[in-house]
Amino acid sequence: TRTKLPKVGTTIFTVMSQLAAEHRAVNLGQGFPDFDVPDRLVDGLAEAMRLGHNQYAPMTGIPALRDAIAEKTERVYAHRPDAEHEITVTSGATEALFNAIHAVVRAGEEVIVLDPAYDSYEPAIELAGAVAVHVPLDPRTFAPDWQRVRDAITPRTRMLIVNSPHNPSGAMFGAADIAALTDLLRDTDIVLLSDEVYEHIVFDGARHESVLRHPELRARAFVVSSFGKTYHCTGWKLGYCIAPPVLTAEFRKVHQYNVFCTFAPAQHAFAAMLREAPEHYEQLGAFYQAKRDAFAAQLATTRLIPLPVPGGYFQLVDYSQVSDLDDAAFCRWLTIERGVAAIPLSPFYAVPPPGQRLARLCFAKNDATLEAAITRLQAL
Amino acid sequence: TRTKLPKVGTTIFTVMSQLAAEHRAVNLGQGFPDFDVPDRLVDGLAEAMRLGHNQYAPMTGIPALRDAIAEKTERVYAHRPDAEHEITVTSGATEALFNAIHAVVRAGEEVIVLDPAYDSYEPAIELAGAVAVHVPLDPRTFAPDWQRVRDAITPRTRMLIVNSPHNPSGAMFGAADIAALTDLLRDTDIVLLSDEVYEHIVFDGARHESVLRHPELRARAFVVSSFGKTYHCTGWKLGYCIAPPVLTAEFRKVHQYNVFCTFAPAQHAFAAMLREAPEHYEQLGAFYQAKRDAFAAQLATTRLIPLPVPGGYFQLVDYSQVSDLDDAAFCRWLTIERGVAAIPLSPFYAVPPPGQRLARLCFAKNDATLEAAITRLQAL
Ligand SMILES: CSCCC(=O)C(=O)O
Ligand SMILES: CSCCC(=O)C(=O)O
Repeated sequence: TRTKLPKVGTTIFTVMSQLAAEHRAVNLGQGFPDFDVPDRLVDGLAEAMRLGHNQYAPMTGIPALRDAIAEKTERVYAHRPDAEHEITVTSGATEALFNAIHAVVRAGEEVIVLDPAYDSYEPAIELAGAVAVHVPLDPRTFAPDWQRVRDAITPRTRMLIVNSPHNPSGAMFGAADIAALTDLLRDTDIVLLSDEVYEHIVFDGARHESVLRHPELRARAFVVSSFGKTYHCTGWKLGYCIAPPVLTAEFRKVHQYNVFCTFAPAQHAFAAMLREAPEHYEQLGAFYQAKRDAFAAQLATTRLIPLPVPGGYFQLVDYSQVSDLDDAAFCRWLTIERGVAAIPLSPFYAVPPPGQRLARLCFAKNDATLEAAITRLQAL
Repeated sequence: TRTKLPKVGTTIFTVMSQLAAEHRAVNLGQGFPDFDVPDRLVDGLAEAMRLGHNQYAPMTGIPALRDAIAEKTERVYAHRPDAEHEITVTSGATEALFNAIHAVVRAGEEVIVLDPAYDSYEPAIELAGAVAVHVPLDPRTFAPDWQRVRDAITPRTRMLIVNSPHNPSGAMFGAADIAALTDLLRDTDIVLLSDEVYEHIVFDGARHESVLRHPELRARAFVVSSFGKTYHCTGWKLGYCIAPPVLTAEFRKVHQYNVFCTFAPAQHAFAAMLREAPEHYEQLGAFYQAKRDAFAAQLATTRLIPLPVPGGYFQLVDYSQVSDLDDAAFCRWLTIERGVAAIPLSPFYAVPPPGQRLARLCFAKNDATLEAAITRLQAL
């Protein structure tokens, strides 16, 4: 069989998690929390099963969950999407990203991706027969250069993908980015795909500039989020997409024939959780800020240099004082020889900046795990 | 937005379920059981959550579940697939069908689909930029005419999709079909996609001719199944795909960037269920055969004429003694005016046979539901 996706191998997340398991390394690689899922969700899910919510959910998601998402969106971003025509529940953010791309991008068209980017965007673009056009972010601050984005637009550009807070860097859009982005897209028919899965993990009083806050942007955007990051349940694979009715209609055509609907009992649990315990997502930033600060303070006792983390649950570290290895080799070495699994940055890149010496550590871990990692990192 | 899927509307299953709810009709339309999920599964899932299996499962599925699927396949079909390289756990059979098509079918290629067919095949083919080539089944027995299939093959044919037991008709392949199919595909590079979600719902001592039993076929096939139909949990969206390593490798590239992995706690529950309670799937045929026979006997007291049901949980009925309406109009009328929701056959067809007067009733319902439906149908 000739392969349709010649560049695709096993994701770096799986590779490093397996390596971590093999070598009993502390796994700060693949991004998943090791905190308990809130009891209310576990109990709500179990209750939903016992109440018999075990058959197909509506294709778009149960109405109670779509309403709860609408309400939450209004509460947080002062904009209430239409639960009936603008919200679709998906099997995690990954499915939502995949559907959004397949809903509107045609063979031969171009999708602008900021480099580095989460690794699922490009294969999804390629599977749609389209081409990813990469525009580099600043290699240290990971800020977009909007003039370079503008220069990358051609008559074939169909979509622009953005991601704030950004994986792998944690960089966040500010008001100036939103202004530049709005200006850039005005008078084009480019669809915006905004990956906002870390929306509630933002620090230092910064405001998450959700595309949903901005009428001109949201009128042309798919906004994707996920419960996995917010509720410590990445393995529950529940996310959603908010988009104007005309985009949602196309999105649902793909979703309907891709997975049709998502695990029904969890939808009931989240509908209640969102409505009854908004403090969970409201306090998540503070929860992770304490983690971030404690971890950065501990890193200061090592020879790794932590970069600023405006949002998300990843800490980038500059390891140039420790090693001259390239990042892939360094992360393998760190996992195998030093017992701490990290993720190299190069797999996120189409064109890795030459000589970049950065690794990504996930700090969504309990204190004992982080301390065990620090003890090992102090020996570097 | 110009639509990429101009023919796609809301599925007939959603349309009729909504109509049924609006008119408080007994819903024998959309195919889902109303039996309880086995306690062992509900408890196993709840336990897996409490044990903390709430983060990303391995992309391919947890090893214990893939092993249990391998073991079950060997037990039932006398062939043990390699759990490591041939089995992938998916978000239901629908995702598996979508991935299989996207894994190997390229823009401009052709996929042969037997007409009528489950409604997700063609949109998935179109989204891959390919063309569905329809070969009619016999309009009364739903048997394939293998010579017509052979005549439909062109140099562009990349895949053939088969489905036994068949939805909507319940028709099943016999040994002669397998022989003809094997012969047909020999010396071609056509990939077979075999949708076997009703594998355990077969009657009258017939043997389900799984493609997995047949070495020459399975060497070129994606075989798709689902736990939803077997364990009364269509809303849990857990299925799997078995294929040779080279096809599985391509399949996983799509799965990895489509949903990445599936709901983790359910995987633990099914791993135990498959191993510890094989009698569940072994007795499912007998369970449904009793349902089928009781329902057919009751239908004999109405003016609807039941067709033979070799497998699956759908009863086709000929309503030509009752009404001259076309099937779509008849099913709407039956739902709204007579309080029984059924599914018309025409939406399953690319080219509906003229004058066909058939409707599909789902008998995967408890006795009280079926009796309530019969009472209403007796008044026709
Ligand atoms: C789907 S595994 C990747 C998890 C993740 O979001 C990350 O580590 O960046
Ligand atoms: C995904 S809804 C369709 C359910 C089903 O398999 C059917 O009714 O045929």
